[in-house]
Amino acid sequence: MEPPDHLRPILQRIAEFLRAEVYPLERAFLTEGPESIEEDLAARRAQVKDMGLWVPPLPPEFGGMGLSLYEFAFVSEILGRSPLGHYVFNCQAPDIGNMELLWHHGSREQKERYLEPLAAGEIRSCFSMTEPEHAGSNPVHMSTTAVREGDTYVINGHKWFTTAADGAAFAIVMAVTDPQADRYARASQIIVPTDTPGFRLHCNTPVMGHAGRGFFTHGEIFYEDCRVPVSNRIGAEGAGFALAQERLGPGRIHHCMRWIGICERAFDLMCERALKRELEPGKTLATRQIVQTWIAESRAEINAARLLVLDAAVKIDRNGAYAARNEISMIKFYVANVLQRVLDRAIQVHGGLGVTDYTPLAHWYRHERAARIYDGPDEVHKLVVARRILREYPREG
Amino acid sequence: MEPPDHLRPILQRIAEFLRAEVYPLERAFLTEGPESIEEDLAARRAQVKDMGLWVPPLPPEFGGMGLSLYEFAFVSEILGRSPLGHYVFNCQAPDIGNMELLWHHGSREQKERYLEPLAAGEIRSCFSMTEPEHAGSNPVHMSTTAVREGDTYVINGHKWFTTAADGAAFAIVMAVTDPQADRYARASQIIVPTDTPGFRLHCNTPVMGHAGRGFFTHGEIFYEDCRVPVSNRIGAEGAGFALAQERLGPGRIHHCMRWIGICERAFDLMCERALKRELEPGKTLATRQIVQTWIAESRAEINAARLLVLDAAVKIDRNGAYAARNEISMIKFYVANVLQRVLDRAIQVHGGLGVTDYTPLAHWYRHERAARIYDGPDEVHKLVVARRILREYPREG
Amino acid sequence: MEPPDHLRPILQRIAEFLRAEVYPLERAFLTEGPESIEEDLAARRAQVKDMGLWVPPLPPEFGGMGLSLYEFAFVSEILGRSPLGHYVFNCQAPDIGNMELLWHHGSREQKERYLEPLAAGEIRSCFSMTEPEHAGSNPVHMSTTAVREGDTYVINGHKWFTTAADGAAFAIVMAVTDPQADRYARASQIIVPTDTPGFRLHCNTPVMGHAGRGFFTHGEIFYEDCRVPVSNRIGAEGAGFALAQERLGPGRIHHCMRWIGICERAFDLMCERALKRELEPGKTLATRQIVQTWIAESRAEINAARLLVLDAAVKIDRNGAYAARNEISMIKFYVANVLQRVLDRAIQVHGGLGVTDYTPLAHWYRHERAARIYDGPDEVHKLVVARRILREYPREG
Amino acid sequence: MEPPDHLRPILQRIAEFLRAEVYPLERAFLTEGPESIEEDLAARRAQVKDMGLWVPPLPPEFGGMGLSLYEFAFVSEILGRSPLGHYVFNCQAPDIGNMELLWHHGSREQKERYLEPLAAGEIRSCFSMTEPEHAGSNPVHMSTTAVREGDTYVINGHKWFTTAADGAAFAIVMAVTDPQADRYARASQIIVPTDTPGFRLHCNTPVMGHAGRGFFTHGEIFYEDCRVPVSNRIGAEGAGFALAQERLGPGRIHHCMRWIGICERAFDLMCERALKRELEPGKTLATRQIVQTWIAESRAEINAARLLVLDAAVKIDRNGAYAARNEISMIKFYVANVLQRVLDRAIQVHGGLGVTDYTPLAHWYRHERAARIYDGPDEVHKLVVARRILREYPREG
Repeated sequence: MEPPDHLRPILQRIAEFLRAEVYPLERAFLTEGPESIEEDLAARRAQVKDMGLWVPPLPPEFGGMGLSLYEFAFVSEILGRSPLGHYVFNCQAPDIGNMELLWHHGSREQKERYLEPLAAGEIRSCFSMTEPEHAGSNPVHMSTTAVREGDTYVINGHKWFTTAADGAAFAIVMAVTDPQADRYARASQIIVPTDTPGFRLHCNTPVMGHAGRGFFTHGEIFYEDCRVPVSNRIGAEGAGFALAQERLGPGRIHHCMRWIGICERAFDLMCERALKRELEPGKTLATRQIVQTWIAESRAEINAARLLVLDAAVKIDRNGAYAARNEISMIKFYVANVLQRVLDRAIQVHGGLGVTDYTPLAHWYRHERAARIYDGPDEVHKLVVARRILREYPREG
Repeated sequence: MEPPDHLRPILQRIAEFLRAEVYPLERAFLTEGPESIEEDLAARRAQVKDMGLWVPPLPPEFGGMGLSLYEFAFVSEILGRSPLGHYVFNCQAPDIGNMELLWHHGSREQKERYLEPLAAGEIRSCFSMTEPEHAGSNPVHMSTTAVREGDTYVINGHKWFTTAADGAAFAIVMAVTDPQADRYARASQIIVPTDTPGFRLHCNTPVMGHAGRGFFTHGEIFYEDCRVPVSNRIGAEGAGFALAQERLGPGRIHHCMRWIGICERAFDLMCERALKRELEPGKTLATRQIVQTWIAESRAEINAARLLVLDAAVKIDRNGAYAARNEISMIKFYVANVLQRVLDRAIQVHGGLGVTDYTPLAHWYRHERAARIYDGPDEVHKLVVARRILREYPREG
Repeated sequence: MEPPDHLRPILQRIAEFLRAEVYPLERAFLTEGPESIEEDLAARRAQVKDMGLWVPPLPPEFGGMGLSLYEFAFVSEILGRSPLGHYVFNCQAPDIGNMELLWHHGSREQKERYLEPLAAGEIRSCFSMTEPEHAGSNPVHMSTTAVREGDTYVINGHKWFTTAADGAAFAIVMAVTDPQADRYARASQIIVPTDTPGFRLHCNTPVMGHAGRGFFTHGEIFYEDCRVPVSNRIGAEGAGFALAQERLGPGRIHHCMRWIGICERAFDLMCERALKRELEPGKTLATRQIVQTWIAESRAEINAARLLVLDAAVKIDRNGAYAARNEISMIKFYVANVLQRVLDRAIQVHGGLGVTDYTPLAHWYRHERAARIYDGPDEVHKLVVARRILREYPREG
Repeated sequence: MEPPDHLRPILQRIAEFLRAEVYPLERAFLTEGPESIEEDLAARRAQVKDMGLWVPPLPPEFGGMGLSLYEFAFVSEILGRSPLGHYVFNCQAPDIGNMELLWHHGSREQKERYLEPLAAGEIRSCFSMTEPEHAGSNPVHMSTTAVREGDTYVINGHKWFTTAADGAAFAIVMAVTDPQADRYARASQIIVPTDTPGFRLHCNTPVMGHAGRGFFTHGEIFYEDCRVPVSNRIGAEGAGFALAQERLGPGRIHHCMRWIGICERAFDLMCERALKRELEPGKTLATRQIVQTWIAESRAEINAARLLVLDAAVKIDRNGAYAARNEISMIKFYVANVLQRVLDRAIQVHGGLGVTDYTPLAHWYRHERAARIYDGPDEVHKLVVARRILREYPREG
């Protein structure tokens, strides 16, 4: 499936910009850390804004390009080719998800106060849902509470994997507001400015060898009698689970297209390395059947995965996210596994170089291992899909 | 990807006909052999003709429906759900391939004498290319010769896997007509009526436990000073390889969609069995995580494989088979492997029943093992694809 | 692990006999059916008796070699190299299992009447446990009953996959004798001569394309008010399940070593074919990296599987089957999967020849698919092993 | 295969020491880096010395336990359970390999000057073989040269993946001493004290997100007219390749047993986590079929891998490393792949926790990815094994 014609020049501009301006930053990012390129990143973000390519899925009123879900899928694929791509275009998780949430469900005040500076890239944010004591795959099994006292919520709880909490201006917290309600109506999503007393960033969790810095972190947070006005709640009380679902559906398309972008970059690196690396004078890795087999299998797998994602995007556009929920679950586990296999082969073709930080492969190998875990582990998605499918078949009577 | 709207009622009629009239014949076919249902099959074929669904990819002048490549892909998928489907609609390999060849490249006389009765279902045919002494994956490595003597070719050679030779009225033989020519211009395709002296069907090769009968066979044939008029050659002298390539490209789409059809039937059987089989009172296989996992993985794999095939079909339609040759190679190995995995899981869910001939699963398990071998083994397609891909990358200078 | 020194000359004699006298019968067996070599098989069995290699695991008093479990493991491996091996040495399933059962638990009369002619190869037998209506993986979920009336059991039930029932002199039937007993004490094993009124062999179930003939069949049987004396019961009433377990444990070793034997033969065939098959003049399949990779992986997998089986055998010998029950379960699924992979690769290396019946590969491919199903499907063994392992770990307190 | 009886109490002491004294250091090691536990490690090493468990494979004259290859295999397995195990017992790569090399092939002076302080744990060392410009899989394809000038070698070259170079007292360098010699006789191994002028540690290569510190590094080194006395050569001139082979053979056993130790620890962590983690109140991960399946498969795979390694060790002990070279190659790729699968499953069972550094799983996941690359990538070992196997079969005549 090819991108719509009107999108092609845009995609090409983005691809060229990445190649010329962003790829060259990767080596320092990978070997010296994000703090070493802070100024460069800021400069690139300014350039993107000037080029009119900023925060693509948001409407122009918030400074974006106003791309549809399907259009942004192709942009996300291109951006995925660099670990810095989405950040430079201000559409990185979790900020973009928070922006879309506030855009669709925020009050006027919330939009002014939180969405606008976020969309402008002036502040950052985080999304605080996962708890260490509970399986993330069961979102109704949660301990954090927001108890209402007059016009205030008093929040208590313990969260982790709150990505990018370090340096964020606010968190959107998932907390139980009515423990007696129906299981899917217990929680609400509430904005908590990070300078609120009782919001305590305990640490950046060390993940795959590193606690990270700033945006590139996963925070462990304690909420200790943390008080925010009730007007900080997004949407209705009890709507937290529904909003989270809504976020994950279309968001999955962009996540998966980002993974496809990673696959494409890894594929290029694999082919280029194979053509360059000599096993003996005049005889490159590219002449080896085993390497050729990996290249062909990777190509077929990436193509199939990409078609599956785009087909799900079409279905969402046509029939809505609910009708496409099986497709949304299937791309989660399917693409995450293709991603892992392609990265693994690309590393193997690189030999020792593949485990160094001189290519982005080792970065993705480490950090995208979580792709099979976050937003519900593969296994949970498989069970959910199968049970829905089985319900379509007639029972023995 | 959904079928075009105008095709849907046709697909539905075909599906209903299969379910009502063809599925019930399968058990006898599988357990007592094709000879036990000869009359039933003839009756069904007559019904299909009456319904106007006969030989779908052929134009109306030859009694067909005139479906395009892309349209027939969806029909082939439906027909694939039964091991008898294509035969009942007179679009079974190798006949349909021979018909398309004669339609596009046959002389007027050849069309009258061979294509018309074939399209009418009055005779059968076979395609005689593979040789036991040479790897089928290397089509320019071939021993059968057709030496010209005046207006006659004298053919000598040894072929096997000439599917459905038993009972065929004629064979189309691939033979070297000019051993000195460029390697891809050595061979020609020549029609040999099976009653020609020197055409000797040595035996039906026993394959997966059975030599078969009639249409359901693979013949081993000796050509011994077998003389046919030069006018029996299809197309130009030396065009044999090019014609074979042309046959395999679009033909692959239909083959692969047939495999998808098999996958869909196996998937249904798997789900139905899971819902029916009790492990203990009130507890069916469908409640087991392992079975659910297989169902979800199969669903995702079948969907991905199907999209890959349809995408290749679109590309052939749009840019021609040559431009899509990588896609045509990739679906070969990709879909054949999905097919094998899905069949394997479906059998495992059926337990002992899965290895009996009371479902079509064991039949497909046996006979579609060859899917990874015929028309070039998976491995050859992978190498070919990879080498083409690698040529697109810049070499080190 | 090497076989004990004293066993080596025996193993070598067996291997030579197989190569010289049994392999040459395979082609007719595979392409014309077992009935075509009946006399040859009888002659070979007589030779084996004369050579003193008859029914190896039975003690000399019953005409056997008196080999221990561990010793017979190596013999079973060698015999497994031919689909006819075990039969020619009169240690084929299910007869050998029945012999061991009668030897250890039969009454004096049962031994005289059933074991002796069986051990002599004068009659055949079958084992009637699996029922079509119940999952074989749950042996306490069974409908066949044996109701006592005085000194008689009246048996009613429906069995299938009663291997080799066609032509057997007697069946050993698993039937519920006390439906009120503890679930593992409900059933008993009872000898039923096949000429008993009420024993009805309904059909030989068609399996993988063929209903078979004589020994090479799987019978579907109805027991209809079938009366046998109570003295036909083997062991105590209610001991049926325990005896079945006892049979499966050590029997698994021999089964698995037979599979290893199949792997070894397939491996040889793969290597020989690779060295022989030319892709182009002077360039054999053996020069291809992909084929080399399969050879190395197969070698490592077969070695690992074999060590796992022999290690389990040592553990049974040392600590008994109960202590080794995890090992016995693990070799079931582990070796069955290695077997399938090795056969699959060997077939692929053979190309078209691999799916014909001109090698034993296609026979094994079809009939050993059931290896992952019978005696409890892989999945059940995995769950059982895991639960036992998990019980060894301390629970959270 | 069980360890020899006399070894059991020793293994138990080591296991207990690790559990009590070393496991507790892991968290700081993983989250704050090796530098945070330097003193603790020194204290533990002193304890190990006092307990008489120091540098186990070295003979008592060098302060070791004098364990045989086979005995040390079991010790290495236990030590592998902690990423700190081998270091605390002073048998960590590359030091232990250097010690064995010097012990067997060092001159008296080399032993005094280099082996003794190394064995005592007073200094560290490194092994400098891999070059960035050449595939490590082809050890005769190497650019570093040692040109003889009188009694001096002048070394020039560029190496990387010189593990633990940072802080090492000396390197053993592989350099071409005679470019005209037979390809396996070109190189020699030469001791280069790291304070020699011309030895330049360019950087610690960033690997999987970190350049490391001290022992836990991979150095990139330039040798620039680096002069050492000829007496620093180990063994004969031209013996470099042979000595490297000798090092890799038995060393592989210990490497692989270390990997088995990692597998065992990961397996324990997986089971413990499964029993502890609740999906919903009262329902742990351990009750899930998918998790149980992983546990059973992991158990079978680890057992099989371990038997394969121990069997290779027995074969080396009995017939020498040359006779066992296929086994030595096979355990390389076989065990490395089991390791990766087991780690992957253990991480998945841990969910988010699995990618944090609060267990050693993420450390191993990152750093043992190289297990399939270093000492020759899997693919090269497979090809080598297959070619040797194929040579044993008769060629077509």
